[in-house]
Amino acid sequence: MAVLHPLSDEEVSAEALAVLTEIRAARQTDFINNFWRVLAHDPALLRATWDRLAVVMGPGTLDPMVKEMIYLAVSAANGCSYCVHSHTAAARAKGMTEAQHGELLSVIAMASQTNALANALQIPVDERFQAG
Amino acid sequence: MAVLHPLSDEEVSAEALAVLTEIRAARQTDFINNFWRVLAHDPALLRATWDRLAVVMGPGTLDPMVKEMIYLAVSAANGCSYCVHSHTAAARAKGMTEAQHGELLSVIAMASQTNALANALQIPVDERFQAG
Amino acid sequence: MAVLHPLSDEEVSAEALAVLTEIRAARQTDFINNFWRVLAHDPALLRATWDRLAVVMGPGTLDPMVKEMIYLAVSAANGCSYCVHSHTAAARAKGMTEAQHGELLSVIAMASQTNALANALQIPVDERFQAG
Amino acid sequence: MAVLHPLSDEEVSAEALAVLTEIRAARQTDFINNFWRVLAHDPALLRATWDRLAVVMGPGTLDPMVKEMIYLAVSAANGCSYCVHSHTAAARAKGMTEAQHGELLSVIAMASQTNALANALQIPVDERFQAG
Amino acid sequence: MAVLHPLSDEEVSAEALAVLTEIRAARQTDFINNFWRVLAHDPALLRATWDRLAVVMGPGTLDPMVKEMIYLAVSAANGCSYCVHSHTAAARAKGMTEAQHGELLSVIAMASQTNALANALQIPVDERFQAG
Amino acid sequence: MAVLHPLSDEEVSAEALAVLTEIRAARQTDFINNFWRVLAHDPALLRATWDRLAVVMGPGTLDPMVKEMIYLAVSAANGCSYCVHSHTAAARAKGMTEAQHGELLSVIAMASQTNALANALQIPVDERFQAG
Repeated sequence: MAVLHPLSDEEVSAEALAVLTEIRAARQTDFINNFWRVLAHDPALLRATWDRLAVVMGPGTLDPMVKEMIYLAVSAANGCSYCVHSHTAAARAKGMTEAQHGELLSVIAMASQTNALANALQIPVDERFQAG
Repeated sequence: MAVLHPLSDEEVSAEALAVLTEIRAARQTDFINNFWRVLAHDPALLRATWDRLAVVMGPGTLDPMVKEMIYLAVSAANGCSYCVHSHTAAARAKGMTEAQHGELLSVIAMASQTNALANALQIPVDERFQAG
Repeated sequence: MAVLHPLSDEEVSAEALAVLTEIRAARQTDFINNFWRVLAHDPALLRATWDRLAVVMGPGTLDPMVKEMIYLAVSAANGCSYCVHSHTAAARAKGMTEAQHGELLSVIAMASQTNALANALQIPVDERFQAG
Repeated sequence: MAVLHPLSDEEVSAEALAVLTEIRAARQTDFINNFWRVLAHDPALLRATWDRLAVVMGPGTLDPMVKEMIYLAVSAANGCSYCVHSHTAAARAKGMTEAQHGELLSVIAMASQTNALANALQIPVDERFQAG
Repeated sequence: MAVLHPLSDEEVSAEALAVLTEIRAARQTDFINNFWRVLAHDPALLRATWDRLAVVMGPGTLDPMVKEMIYLAVSAANGCSYCVHSHTAAARAKGMTEAQHGELLSVIAMASQTNALANALQIPVDERFQAG
Repeated sequence: MAVLHPLSDEEVSAEALAVLTEIRAARQTDFINNFWRVLAHDPALLRATWDRLAVVMGPGTLDPMVKEMIYLAVSAANGCSYCVHSHTAAARAKGMTEAQHGELLSVIAMASQTNALANALQIPVDERFQAG
């Protein structure tokens, strides 16, 4: 299913192809996943999304695998099927073991249930948790 | 706001007090936040929630601070005001720096926007992302 | 907080007042909660919402208290603070005991965690769960 | 689609098989749905999830069918495709009629629209709905 | 996948067929999409949903295409796969160009990321944004 | 409530102040709302968010007021209290009338209920809604 079909290299504009080339270089693989091939229908949106992603997921104070696990956790909470698939693959590619995956799932499940309880009970925020 | 008021130590049942005592021992502080004081209205739910939390957030293959950051990311995605407050405090208590917090926020924002795009475009999952 | 202030009986239009009068008669109380007083800014929306609510929450095959508990469960899952407050009150008014409230919360928490796991794992739907 | 394939009885660990055996006994059927077969990749998570589910969905103050309907309502609100399928089947197995299903759907739709209105208008919670 | 199969014209009740006939007349096409064919299992819910939709999406102060784009934006935010597909088609049928679609997607992505940031930071609402 | 307090002009870094100055110039007002004052704790995130917002909400093929209404619709669906307040104000500043606001709310409520129904029924996507 889709509302726009993924574009092949032959179908994209020159502007979009330039982004795909950057993705290939950054990831050191010829494979381009459907997310980018669909965004290629709008080269400006493709460019802005990739440029920001490269910065956010690039070098920083957090481990790259940890960032992928956080990305995956948000994607699961948002119920994004595509993103869960792609970021599980990305986290594995960056070293996530099966044990770490299981632990991530346990934290996601735990947070989801206490989120639901706090929302269902509308628990008042403790004063000490609030910025001064 | 709340639908049940947070119970004081004097108001809780013996069963609930036993859980609060365990929380104090585990966290090495006398302070008990409202989440547990509201759950104390239902001692069995309080017990089950704390017992599971202690296991999930206890020693494992992921760093405790990383687990708190994942917990915070899920809570933000689920729009849980209470949980965002309490787990930001918990992540800081476990060493999250301001720079790491900023990086976490950037990943959450990035994931949220690509989740939205993937959902809005119903992008088909690439074959290589699917379990064999 | 609000983006439109709740209207008093003196401020609403005749069209809106007619709806408030119906709500008072149906609920046998003079009290009108803020939800309706804010919707009163748009009498047509107020009318359509109340008319539908009266049908949906009126006599049927499910117990009125059960319907309020389902309403509360959906409101918690959607993170609607106002609705959690008002439908907890409504469920209690229709007889929900503290024990039933605790059991409802436990089901909400359970569902939320297995929902999160199923979404995080993108579990394939079993053939026998699908309509023929 | 999936990120982990459902394990057959032959593929699961002894620890996981023990849980599957308990599920079969509790449900009095040989059939094990994919949710448990995928969780079996992490026997500790499988065990904790099943143990809690058995308590929460076991005997209590609410009718078992009502609990399944609440579970289904939360799953729909959370947009969990797998859970909607499995808990619609479970509610039917516990006696939900087509008329009750229709009424459940009507309540879910009603709650979803008033949740959206309350969130879009940020309606202030009435004082009488707040815990003293 | 589905939990109820879409009913053919031959399978629906007379009450439901009357609604399908109105939909055909309003849209000037013989085609009826699955949403209505599944709702036809509950003629009263089908009737109420169609009657309200006809009013809400009918003539008003906003352009019909704009209303479809808003509908699509909400559907994407709610992660509703079916609705994203059907309302993308509807917006296109009412004139949405590829450029407008791209701009809509950009706004959805932008809102999703600032929503996530505001929720993750629990930013206090400025006084001037609150109703007097 | 907040997890980081809004920074005054005196507290922000030079890098952040430059962004606030751009916001003031673009909006032709001295007022800076809390969203930007909290983001100012992370000047790089503040810069990236503002730069992208300026492009997305700048001149294009959609009317500026329409874009604000779409932004508001997404914010309501995501349950973002802050964003609902700020974008209701922004839409009004760009000309949204009370009648248009009411119509927007009606579309949001309608979409939310059909989203919930489609998710609760897992309605199969019609072939003609899928990209070729």
